[in-house]
Amino acid sequence: MADKKICSPKKQLLFTPGPLTTSMTVKRAMLRDVGSRDFEFIQTLKDIRNRLLKIGGVVNRGYETVLLQGSGTYAVEAVISTGTPKNGKWLVIVNGAYGKRIEKIVDVLNIKKTVLNYNENCMPDPQDIKKTLGEDSSITNVAIIHHETTTGIVNPIEEVGKIVKSYNKIYFVDAMSSFGAIPIDLTKSGIDYLACTANKNIEGVPGFAFVLVRKEVLLGTEGNARSFTLDLLAQWRGFEKNGQFRFTPPTHSLLAFKQALAELEEEGGVEGRAARYKENCEILVNGMRKMGFTEYLPVEVQGYIIVSFNYPDHPNFNFEEFYNRLNAWGFVIYPGKLSKTNCFRIAVCGHLFKKDILALLIAVDEVIEEMGIEY
Amino acid sequence: MADKKICSPKKQLLFTPGPLTTSMTVKRAMLRDVGSRDFEFIQTLKDIRNRLLKIGGVVNRGYETVLLQGSGTYAVEAVISTGTPKNGKWLVIVNGAYGKRIEKIVDVLNIKKTVLNYNENCMPDPQDIKKTLGEDSSITNVAIIHHETTTGIVNPIEEVGKIVKSYNKIYFVDAMSSFGAIPIDLTKSGIDYLACTANKNIEGVPGFAFVLVRKEVLLGTEGNARSFTLDLLAQWRGFEKNGQFRFTPPTHSLLAFKQALAELEEEGGVEGRAARYKENCEILVNGMRKMGFTEYLPVEVQGYIIVSFNYPDHPNFNFEEFYNRLNAWGFVIYPGKLSKTNCFRIAVCGHLFKKDILALLIAVDEVIEEMGIEY
Repeated sequence: MADKKICSPKKQLLFTPGPLTTSMTVKRAMLRDVGSRDFEFIQTLKDIRNRLLKIGGVVNRGYETVLLQGSGTYAVEAVISTGTPKNGKWLVIVNGAYGKRIEKIVDVLNIKKTVLNYNENCMPDPQDIKKTLGEDSSITNVAIIHHETTTGIVNPIEEVGKIVKSYNKIYFVDAMSSFGAIPIDLTKSGIDYLACTANKNIEGVPGFAFVLVRKEVLLGTEGNARSFTLDLLAQWRGFEKNGQFRFTPPTHSLLAFKQALAELEEEGGVEGRAARYKENCEILVNGMRKMGFTEYLPVEVQGYIIVSFNYPDHPNFNFEEFYNRLNAWGFVIYPGKLSKTNCFRIAVCGHLFKKDILALLIAVDEVIEEMGIEY
Repeated sequence: MADKKICSPKKQLLFTPGPLTTSMTVKRAMLRDVGSRDFEFIQTLKDIRNRLLKIGGVVNRGYETVLLQGSGTYAVEAVISTGTPKNGKWLVIVNGAYGKRIEKIVDVLNIKKTVLNYNENCMPDPQDIKKTLGEDSSITNVAIIHHETTTGIVNPIEEVGKIVKSYNKIYFVDAMSSFGAIPIDLTKSGIDYLACTANKNIEGVPGFAFVLVRKEVLLGTEGNARSFTLDLLAQWRGFEKNGQFRFTPPTHSLLAFKQALAELEEEGGVEGRAARYKENCEILVNGMRKMGFTEYLPVEVQGYIIVSFNYPDHPNFNFEEFYNRLNAWGFVIYPGKLSKTNCFRIAVCGHLFKKDILALLIAVDEVIEEMGIEY
């Protein structure tokens, strides 16, 4: 067994889906103070906005990047707040906590909605969406989560998008934990709004989120926003006017993000990153299975970013103890967020490599031995 | 004249009111990734929330700290969104861009308002506020900016607060650029909500803001919030429930802030910081006057955080050139934000000391000589 001191408690590896483990070079990019209205920083913002379009494959294809201070959920609320016409109505597709969160935001903003609910281990059925849109012509917007961080399931955004577009509705994809590591064809999927955040697969640090949006759609949102700060159109106009954020941005997070984007490119872009995450995921799942753990999701819907494992059916298993013991080794895993099943989650996104996954597996093996859990 | 290379362009000193210059130890605190739901981080949040109450002098005095992702304006919107009862009406006191911003937020949220407007170089007259509150009993909330970053003017929040409380209204002080360096007695001023941000006088990096709020008032806001994310009550309940943010927090900014709070304490708290900023300001103003610059504000209302200087009345003066030349020296100053007068601003807040102000003065002297500006 490896020495427990290989990871000091001060230097933890995060197997969590964001904030996640970032490279030291990304963190070191934050060792400077820059003025938020200064020329160099304005250039940085321009560069970041362009590179995000590039990752989305939509340079010069009628899309814009809007950066927004806050967490990913702020970007989701901004899309709903800005993107819903007066008397608009959302169709929200739910198969996890983040779909549910969209439903909740629509409610708080006092917007009409209809919801298609699925079990957390099932993909939504595009035929249901077709049926709903066919029956209710008052629906104006459709929302779906690409990769549900609740479980690690990947939803069929392209198939759904084609249906949404055939009914001429506005299509919003929450790609929080997929963008940057799962290839997305925005135009082919007919995506009008895509929301993501700095601290997921692009491997930056938290502080801001962003939305890729079809310019034509954005320009049609005048007067929609139910918020002053969470107004995508006003935020975009700010960038267009002078290249700056309307309000103080997290300058250090943005410097880190610039570095993170360069490192993503070095790795071979989305394809390169996907390859590493896939390898990480395969090593993790195989290793966990060998110890007797089972995955919550059926293999055919399981993505390669985060895996939900069922609690072992053993009287000695206690998640808190399991978590704390792994933590003492310097490994941070993630609790479950499922409504009915007892699961914990391990994410393989972030600055994690084969050796890190293997180190985690050694620790898990040690910990279940210490806890007296035998399969 | 000093060598231009004393500050490389990569290491700039910010004479801006936030983001501002932070210490290297504050920035170095960001060189770690921590899990947002992890024990150590939860302890950090608890510690930060308590220390902010301490700075406000309201430990065990019925106040709570609510941390909120985003910029200071998000916190202002959250106060208005959460703090306005159904059919509430704001009295907004305006003598600068940030008072105007509150007015704008109230408008966007579709809330009734009445506004008292003053010139940007004038303090609001408490008697006007008394008169307005006496005449309009439908007013429920009153908002004032403590230190208007537009000019550097300090508004009489204590005198105004006594009037607001004598009419039993909810009192909101935007203390964005004062808290931490100008002593504030929250209870004596009758403050119900005080909003501030990480990257002003506490000298942290941007990424989140915070609100000190009277618990009793906060508990009475159920159902008020016009937003899902900018809901102070829900955010507070999140902290109370499990010590965590509801949504991904800027973990690195929070680690930096913990360090910044420790450094504030080392400096002697608010009094110690105020002493340094006062000295900085005195050196700055005296030095600038010697070169012929004049301040926009009358001395009796000028604070010691940021100073607005009138553009020199000289044909060779061009702000952009002045700014760029100082920038080449490694000094970042701040454009003006006044509606009618041509000013630029120099802030003395942040990790700046006597030597830094003197270095800036040397650079200004050099630059105006280069530009051929003689008074």
